[in-house]
Amino acid sequence: MRRLISALFLLLLITVGSSASPTHWRKRVREPCKKLVLYFHDIIYNGHNAKNATSAIVGAPSWGNKTILAGQNHFGDVVVFDDPITLDNNLHSPPVGRAQGFYIYDKKEIFTSWLAFSFVFNSTQHKGSINFAGADPLMNKTRDISVIGGTGDFFMTRGVATLSTDAFEGEVYFRLRVDMNLYECW
Amino acid sequence: MRRLISALFLLLLITVGSSASPTHWRKRVREPCKKLVLYFHDIIYNGHNAKNATSAIVGAPSWGNKTILAGQNHFGDVVVFDDPITLDNNLHSPPVGRAQGFYIYDKKEIFTSWLAFSFVFNSTQHKGSINFAGADPLMNKTRDISVIGGTGDFFMTRGVATLSTDAFEGEVYFRLRVDMNLYECW
Amino acid sequence: MRRLISALFLLLLITVGSSASPTHWRKRVREPCKKLVLYFHDIIYNGHNAKNATSAIVGAPSWGNKTILAGQNHFGDVVVFDDPITLDNNLHSPPVGRAQGFYIYDKKEIFTSWLAFSFVFNSTQHKGSINFAGADPLMNKTRDISVIGGTGDFFMTRGVATLSTDAFEGEVYFRLRVDMNLYECW
Repeated sequence: MRRLISALFLLLLITVGSSASPTHWRKRVREPCKKLVLYFHDIIYNGHNAKNATSAIVGAPSWGNKTILAGQNHFGDVVVFDDPITLDNNLHSPPVGRAQGFYIYDKKEIFTSWLAFSFVFNSTQHKGSINFAGADPLMNKTRDISVIGGTGDFFMTRGVATLSTDAFEGEVYFRLRVDMNLYECW
Repeated sequence: MRRLISALFLLLLITVGSSASPTHWRKRVREPCKKLVLYFHDIIYNGHNAKNATSAIVGAPSWGNKTILAGQNHFGDVVVFDDPITLDNNLHSPPVGRAQGFYIYDKKEIFTSWLAFSFVFNSTQHKGSINFAGADPLMNKTRDISVIGGTGDFFMTRGVATLSTDAFEGEVYFRLRVDMNLYECW
Repeated sequence: MRRLISALFLLLLITVGSSASPTHWRKRVREPCKKLVLYFHDIIYNGHNAKNATSAIVGAPSWGNKTILAGQNHFGDVVVFDDPITLDNNLHSPPVGRAQGFYIYDKKEIFTSWLAFSFVFNSTQHKGSINFAGADPLMNKTRDISVIGGTGDFFMTRGVATLSTDAFEGEVYFRLRVDMNLYECW
């Protein structure tokens, strides 16, 4: 009997110990609490498409200008965008929100970019916003960036978004598929 | 007696099980661990106010320039700022720190912006910094952006900041009220 | 005997209670789950070093230009970079990845900057990326910025990175030492 109770005590101590241990020592399960797939569409202003353009070059290196993406793989070009978000890969589908932010081309040798932006939702499905930041080595089939926060339906969320270039036309149009895996949901 | 001990064992197992479950399955309480209200003041350089200006246009689309905010709702303008933070809504109150970073105007049809910046504190009340990012649809009465991190007194913090335009004068001065609700405090 | 069992029950209740309490009420231990020290090297394009330059001015205030850092402590200059990351402080050591992103100079009175960038790894030691954002008052010996997310080996990480200027040569070259302390590891 006494041995049994001693064993119980020991178990209790272990339990108390483990539940008091700090959060970050606990192995977290890499299973998303929310998944979401969306597309957004970027039409860069090139001097001739003012009506349709959803983005524009706003910064450029000394060897660049604001209507043509610069040489050296566009190194140094800064582009501000306000792109429609759609549920499928059709540019003309009703947008569920806007992708707003900027990207920079940041390598001379190959195309690669860095971006920071928000998905701003305003639809029956979703209200609120999701904020992103990260490197986008766009010649890779898929690239992972961070979901760094959210508001509204996405209050305090964190996760990883996998980008893939779903289509592009020359240097004027591209469409990104965004597979979001959110691992923190409140 | 034996039944009692069995029950204890069962409870123990449940306890051990629940404390080992991953953090993100646990329902989190949406109650801030810290609240903070501050103001910051932005005076945009317009070619005539070099002495007082706290911000300047540093990027612009091809149809814009660096001393006047561009047409089309300033779409594409990039503004760098170093603005005083005050405890109340008075520009001339002693600053408790500086709001430093940038914002971009990112929509042709209406005024809306995207910003990333830090509150850098240096006062008896607060040391350290808070980092922010998110979309700011500035025609809305209130807008939520993410608190994505912090240092010093705000080590590792996360939360949501609600922005509201407290006042503005033409296109030269505006004052933002920032209601911070921090949900992660270390 | 009965008293012993009552005590056990009480302990159990306390244990169950504490493990059900929401994460953010728990005092977290400020002990990193991962530490990392790396260096990166920035060579700013100045009109004469196109071959070696790893960064370029892409935005500037109205009083600045793209080949010389602007007056007033470079206030308003926006610099895009793609800098080699090394394990030691030698520019010519084999890079383990690239630091990619941008920084802005954001104060007229002294040198201070704000930066957002990623460490993009591609080596036997590390795969994946770490994303950073924060204020960098670069005249201070050390400055803390936020690690706001990560991918690959640094999946979902958060933490604080302490920057220090390890060396600089005029206004063309500087080397930053980055001491990363990660407090969230998955």
